[in-house]
Amino acid sequence: MLPLQLQLESHIPLYVQLRDQVRALVHGGNLRVGDRIPATRELAVQLGVHRTTVANAYAELESEGLIRGHVGRGTFICGESNITKITPAPPSLNGGGGVRWESLFADERGEELLGRLTQPTSADSISFVAARPDSRLFPVAELAQCCQTVMKREGADILQMGPSDGYPPLKNALVELLRSEGLAIKDENLVITGGCQQALDLLCKAFLRPGDSVLLENPTYPGAIAIFAAARVRCLGVPVHTDVQPGSTPGVDLAALEATLLSNRIKLMVLTPDFHNPTGTTLPIAARRRLLEIAARYQVPIVEDHIYARLHAEGERMPPLKQLDRANLVIQVDSFSKLGFPGLRVGWCVAPPSVIERLRLVKQTTDLHTDQLAQAILAEFMRRGLLAKHIAKMRKAYGKRLNAMQSALTKHMPEETRWTRPSGGMCLWVELPPGFDSSELLIHIRERGVLFAPGRYFYLQNPQPNTLRLSFTNVNEKEISRGIATLADVLKQEMRKRQRGSRRMEGARVALV
Amino acid sequence: MLPLQLQLESHIPLYVQLRDQVRALVHGGNLRVGDRIPATRELAVQLGVHRTTVANAYAELESEGLIRGHVGRGTFICGESNITKITPAPPSLNGGGGVRWESLFADERGEELLGRLTQPTSADSISFVAARPDSRLFPVAELAQCCQTVMKREGADILQMGPSDGYPPLKNALVELLRSEGLAIKDENLVITGGCQQALDLLCKAFLRPGDSVLLENPTYPGAIAIFAAARVRCLGVPVHTDVQPGSTPGVDLAALEATLLSNRIKLMVLTPDFHNPTGTTLPIAARRRLLEIAARYQVPIVEDHIYARLHAEGERMPPLKQLDRANLVIQVDSFSKLGFPGLRVGWCVAPPSVIERLRLVKQTTDLHTDQLAQAILAEFMRRGLLAKHIAKMRKAYGKRLNAMQSALTKHMPEETRWTRPSGGMCLWVELPPGFDSSELLIHIRERGVLFAPGRYFYLQNPQPNTLRLSFTNVNEKEISRGIATLADVLKQEMRKRQRGSRRMEGARVALV
Repeated sequence: MLPLQLQLESHIPLYVQLRDQVRALVHGGNLRVGDRIPATRELAVQLGVHRTTVANAYAELESEGLIRGHVGRGTFICGESNITKITPAPPSLNGGGGVRWESLFADERGEELLGRLTQPTSADSISFVAARPDSRLFPVAELAQCCQTVMKREGADILQMGPSDGYPPLKNALVELLRSEGLAIKDENLVITGGCQQALDLLCKAFLRPGDSVLLENPTYPGAIAIFAAARVRCLGVPVHTDVQPGSTPGVDLAALEATLLSNRIKLMVLTPDFHNPTGTTLPIAARRRLLEIAARYQVPIVEDHIYARLHAEGERMPPLKQLDRANLVIQVDSFSKLGFPGLRVGWCVAPPSVIERLRLVKQTTDLHTDQLAQAILAEFMRRGLLAKHIAKMRKAYGKRLNAMQSALTKHMPEETRWTRPSGGMCLWVELPPGFDSSELLIHIRERGVLFAPGRYFYLQNPQPNTLRLSFTNVNEKEISRGIATLADVLKQEMRKRQRGSRRMEGARVALV
Repeated sequence: MLPLQLQLESHIPLYVQLRDQVRALVHGGNLRVGDRIPATRELAVQLGVHRTTVANAYAELESEGLIRGHVGRGTFICGESNITKITPAPPSLNGGGGVRWESLFADERGEELLGRLTQPTSADSISFVAARPDSRLFPVAELAQCCQTVMKREGADILQMGPSDGYPPLKNALVELLRSEGLAIKDENLVITGGCQQALDLLCKAFLRPGDSVLLENPTYPGAIAIFAAARVRCLGVPVHTDVQPGSTPGVDLAALEATLLSNRIKLMVLTPDFHNPTGTTLPIAARRRLLEIAARYQVPIVEDHIYARLHAEGERMPPLKQLDRANLVIQVDSFSKLGFPGLRVGWCVAPPSVIERLRLVKQTTDLHTDQLAQAILAEFMRRGLLAKHIAKMRKAYGKRLNAMQSALTKHMPEETRWTRPSGGMCLWVELPPGFDSSELLIHIRERGVLFAPGRYFYLQNPQPNTLRLSFTNVNEKEISRGIATLADVLKQEMRKRQRGSRRMEGARVALV
């Protein structure tokens, strides 16, 4: 019997655990070329897992070239995995040479933020994976015109080195925009960053040392988890209530948040009160006020991720924490990348002057300053009033897509599934029936050309494998309708298989006793 | 008597030490508003320093509003320094509120990379401070045209999120350029970064943990020191021989380098073999080969800063370490920012594929990817053959300025000064007579509208206060001639004052015995 041990409570999918353990047995010499490995059904019974889990692991190992199945004869080890053939290579520019680079790296790193399986298989895949804007809606011609204007007017300044806190015309335009939205800031409250991701990274550098603790929503944005993990910062998660659970206030659980502050030395809280990624929930105004009271009582700053806030499908924007903040404890990170043109890497951070001054120094050490052409183009785009128009257009377009997705889910999804009802933003959150693993579902749906983001990538602790995130902004209504129908179809198939399998598994277990 | 203690061996200028200690006495309550402090001559005698040092410290404190001199009555404390009035402020967006932000920051940070005193005082200052290209020579119209073309041809792709390792057309163009220069790389050997500064920062994140050690040239680029210091990495310096010292091979001292590798666990060496910043020296080819042998023997990777290498005033470019590297131990960081358009924040890193793959993941976590419009414009600029033309133009222009500076130095500088004779790059290195402190000289030259970078900012250990860096690329021949004449004039004045002062000081000391 193979020495395999799966951890059912791990956030690593069971099939991934199995795949990696078989791979390790081959590399460790416990399994050799030509060895026969158990059939999927046999191994499923041995490990007490579903047969699909084993089949998924075998499928991955086969695609890597590590195993091969021969009809009627069984499955055999047939070579080393391609995936791990990186280190030993001939001493040339293309190999690793004599140095074992892996042994020099500062830490272990995983794969892509949302995993390898979320990569499109073909150009016509329908992807609900990334919370990104639709390039078909980009104001390309307007931005090109803005570029011509600024290059003509101030080209030499733009192309020269600039101030680390940002290109002055963009800072001015942002101060004006934020003031018009109700945030009375000055130039000294603002630093320009290479997008929101960098804003979080700079805050991490400015505030956190290895071993410090931060509080995050659980689930949350994987890019935030990745920053803190790489900096060896301890991440503590607080549950987020979705409208999937009836009766609770949506958004971060404030009682759990206060309990975490009480029993831990938390240095920063990083929260997304508007259209939270990945659940789509929005923290109500009363809860915002309570949150700020708690932050003031414990004197713990809040980093407010404001990146989705302008994407309300209807009505008024909720006042941001920064606007309600009397104790001056909120640092806001923001960008236009969710409204369009994320290829221009520009974001910003609103904070008290002493924090901005510190961030400016950190920014200087990190990359001197943000690309100035991108900054100048955005400043001109705002100056011409084109940003306000574009925001209105995107809110309308995303709102329609959100509606289309809600309708398609209602029409197609099996009764046992639940999902959130955001009033804007870019994504919603689905709960499959208990016991389902969305990572395994993705393997099957992917073959049908549809992709989503499995829920487990968003959890820092206690992952719920039966969850998944659907982003609706980079797909049009037709694609949404077709993609959700496929998703529901595959899900129903899997549910039927599972029912039949469970009956058979019951039989198998009985026979073993 | 005031409780003041100056450390003569510190890398912090004496006048800065004195300024900060007086400021601390005021904030600590030892000195109060209305208290009289000693006259400059009196305090100079007490501390055993030159009177100019005290005068400089007092001048700074006066400009901060902390002290005021009254003719005939003396100098008095008159209030709190403006500089430190950051923390206690009314609870508004503009103040720090109730939180003591300073107590939350991860570490102590200094000021600007090259210090506050290097900031221009007026628009017509002649600045030899920053090693940056001259914006009067930027190809603004050509870049604007490239921008129009790429926006028209591929605007939607450029404005969408892109791959973390770089925009494919730029990667292709760079592979082609580097191959044409003799470096046989492939796409998998390349990652695009937000300039060289970010390339170093990503390498620091990928390889170094707090407490690890790196080897650097001493003196070296302050931006590198700042990155490693912030990451709590130990920096070990190896002396650089300049042609100022006759008889030694120019460049990093290889015997000292090997001794450092032998007695320390060094994780990375970060070196600039071409037109080293700040000294301008270039490592000869034989020394490059010996360096690579040493690196291979100790199996320590070299990060080669290649940013100045294309700026040779005459003849052929020296083969880079990466090209001579048989053991595959060199990681090269590079950018076009020294040739022109540093406002477009684009650089890159050449390395074995496993290192590139790691850097790609680190880059993804740091800021997702580099601005794509800047990348696309540079790719088009290269595709049109404009880069090669621009490099030729800049080499010629910088070469002329280098000659102009050498001539002006020869013509004006007092005999007791020495300077390096680089064959390209952006700067040269001056040694004043022993005992001179270039930071103090800067205070006087600045009043005459001329600026340079004091040498001490470039040292990680054993600072030589009598050194300074002159950059010649962002000033034209007229400005160079006028600026160097002023520098020499003020220096000669100070030398005369010092001679007179020394005689008086001798007298004062005798009187005290």
